[in-house]
Amino acid sequence: MVSGGRRAVARCDALGVAPYSDMEGGLFRAYLTPAYAAAQSALAGWMEEAGMSVRLDPAANLIGRYEGMVADAPALMIGSHLDSVKDGGRYDGPLGIMLGVEAVDALNREGKRMPFPIEVIAFGDEEGSRFPAAMLTSRAVAGVLDLGALEVVDGEGVTLQDAIAHFRHPRLDPGSRFSTAAGLGSGTPDQVRGDDYLTAKHPTALAYLEAHIEQGPVLEAKGLAVGTVTGIAAQLRYQAVVTGQANHAGTTTMPLRRDALTGAAEMVLAIETIARGDASDLVATAGRIEVLPGAPNVIPGEARFTIDIRSGDPDRRDRAAGQIIAALEAIALARGLTLTVDLIHDLPASPCAPDLMDRIDAAIAIVGQPPFRLVSGAGHDAMVMAALCPTAMLFIRCRDGVSHNPAEHVDPADAEIALQVMLGFIDRLGDSVAAA
Amino acid sequence: MVSGGRRAVARCDALGVAPYSDMEGGLFRAYLTPAYAAAQSALAGWMEEAGMSVRLDPAANLIGRYEGMVADAPALMIGSHLDSVKDGGRYDGPLGIMLGVEAVDALNREGKRMPFPIEVIAFGDEEGSRFPAAMLTSRAVAGVLDLGALEVVDGEGVTLQDAIAHFRHPRLDPGSRFSTAAGLGSGTPDQVRGDDYLTAKHPTALAYLEAHIEQGPVLEAKGLAVGTVTGIAAQLRYQAVVTGQANHAGTTTMPLRRDALTGAAEMVLAIETIARGDASDLVATAGRIEVLPGAPNVIPGEARFTIDIRSGDPDRRDRAAGQIIAALEAIALARGLTLTVDLIHDLPASPCAPDLMDRIDAAIAIVGQPPFRLVSGAGHDAMVMAALCPTAMLFIRCRDGVSHNPAEHVDPADAEIALQVMLGFIDRLGDSVAAA
Repeated sequence: MVSGGRRAVARCDALGVAPYSDMEGGLFRAYLTPAYAAAQSALAGWMEEAGMSVRLDPAANLIGRYEGMVADAPALMIGSHLDSVKDGGRYDGPLGIMLGVEAVDALNREGKRMPFPIEVIAFGDEEGSRFPAAMLTSRAVAGVLDLGALEVVDGEGVTLQDAIAHFRHPRLDPGSRFSTAAGLGSGTPDQVRGDDYLTAKHPTALAYLEAHIEQGPVLEAKGLAVGTVTGIAAQLRYQAVVTGQANHAGTTTMPLRRDALTGAAEMVLAIETIARGDASDLVATAGRIEVLPGAPNVIPGEARFTIDIRSGDPDRRDRAAGQIIAALEAIALARGLTLTVDLIHDLPASPCAPDLMDRIDAAIAIVGQPPFRLVSGAGHDAMVMAALCPTAMLFIRCRDGVSHNPAEHVDPADAEIALQVMLGFIDRLGDSVAAA
Repeated sequence: MVSGGRRAVARCDALGVAPYSDMEGGLFRAYLTPAYAAAQSALAGWMEEAGMSVRLDPAANLIGRYEGMVADAPALMIGSHLDSVKDGGRYDGPLGIMLGVEAVDALNREGKRMPFPIEVIAFGDEEGSRFPAAMLTSRAVAGVLDLGALEVVDGEGVTLQDAIAHFRHPRLDPGSRFSTAAGLGSGTPDQVRGDDYLTAKHPTALAYLEAHIEQGPVLEAKGLAVGTVTGIAAQLRYQAVVTGQANHAGTTTMPLRRDALTGAAEMVLAIETIARGDASDLVATAGRIEVLPGAPNVIPGEARFTIDIRSGDPDRRDRAAGQIIAALEAIALARGLTLTVDLIHDLPASPCAPDLMDRIDAAIAIVGQPPFRLVSGAGHDAMVMAALCPTAMLFIRCRDGVSHNPAEHVDPADAEIALQVMLGFIDRLGDSVAAA
């Protein structure tokens, strides 16, 4: 018997090369490209083999549906994204889709129906690799897409509206396996209108489950295959500018300096100290720094750096941000420097549903691993889907925390455990829906 | 009666605009340009008015000579440079020349001759604003110019050799005040050969005195108009590269990070702490820093920064460099980072002659200011001239330590004091030469 978790990993590997990649010697699968259409065709075949009917929604998301005991009941959606960053890894996105297919395949082989339909959804553009906006297709499904989103333009000047209208939907190809499938909203058979995008909102979602590689080192450090995600972290981003006095590095004695870089260095360390001291899921990062004039023999007169602060708990994040800004101001004052801190981003937290987290914990315990909860510092389609329905996420360990890189790696044995946890979660959700 | 110090400042101001500048709305006077020739013509007139004979040497330095009691005695040279950086200040260089002219003018008006000739020299290219090499003409005078220096190329592809050969020496113009002056070495009347450059070594220098604005804030902070320079600082320059692990800023918890920037920040602060703790003339500066990949949401995997260390005492400089490198290595070790530190420059100190410093101190005391000694963190023609003869430097206070900037400012009253100190120095040097 084929083991589903291992097969899910193998299928991600199979999609890592041409024609499922548009990049020579690596993986690049952007939204609505030939590689994207090819991957949809392969995935549709696997969905059908698992007993699902397949459709494309108006945002060109591929959806496989496995009917439940009651045909019109709200569906459990299981999914992730099919697109990749340039020269990306094979599992960031596709693994969650393939595990959804395997979960349905397992039910189908047992002839088991749940009290709800299951829909496995492959989102199109989580990464924002083509258009300068991420998670457009999950926003369409969740019904939170701005009208203006259709006007975003890719690197070659093509709008989203035009790209979706000209996408060669596999279902429109004569002989395509989609040619008789339903679900493309309005639009004539030979022309899909971009406006259809806005009709992609899903009508009846019971819950959304997303399995995804962690893209971080926590599970590996804990020696755990999987973990229950508590939510997507709330994020703040600032731009700090420190102004001192540029001067000759040879002629200005130490006591007379107002060095913007040594001030910024003290600030960067204060940020680290505050985040470390919290000893929670709080992270704070200065990822970019520049100094002016930036010559070896000139004391820096200006330093600019970014501050990124995240936590699953918005209050903790905001408290840390307040401490950090106060510390930076004190440093600037003590050094006779001028400081400005501008807020660039304020993204709210997107917590997962507590009852769904409990069910994932319980399913983890049954496979013999201690339940473990962690926050997701990165964004995922689940944070968007939370606007539509309760959401749950399962993180899977990846090697060295590496992602967005060809070296991205998942142990097939971990995928096997993840699949068992997903099946346990589906069972428990079935019990509670049946009891309701 | 015109006050010489004030007139020296006024003459610098007069040379701050066209035709003595080749830059619209600011001062830029590069070596062997039309502005340079125009400034030489004006200066030659002032030299002649002060009782000097004027010549150009083979490196196109302008020299005014005031004979002493003994015609062939080694000359006291007083000088600085006539060129400027782009959009520079008016006093960096020219003030030292103009004060030399005023010193001779004062002697000449008294009919006073010293036991040595005095030559006021206006060097051509201290700043390196045209060719990518500084102090070429003082190196020619000191006899330490590399033969290869004639091959250096300016921004328009002209070699130094060609530039000097095609320079329209004012002395070659019909009717020029130089047309009968001596000193252009070999070369036909209508063609100066570039090789002449190498014959510019001065034959008989007794000593070299350079007055220059401090280009730093020390004298201003001390409330002093002038100070005795102890020498040009010894300088070390390093490039440090810190390597950690680039990772997602949202998904990598604080304890699992190897952040190259926080490591570099701790190192930059250690450099500052060590230099401050020395409480001497030691200065240490990180003037440039870059991090990779340099994205707000990515923990920096690499940080590169420069380290510049200077002191008048080479041993102090080297001791500090050892402490700094040891501190950096300890920080890298504690943080699990990799560190490489490459030596880029090692410039020796150029101490001023102790007996000449004593004479400047004495001359300062007589004008009513407490003598004060300080090291020059920046390079000057004097550091090159030290290869030819004993050197002395007098620093003059400038506002806010600002230089290489149109805002460069000198109080005329300070220039007045500097002139009196220079005359006192000349007197004392005369006494000692007469007594010998």
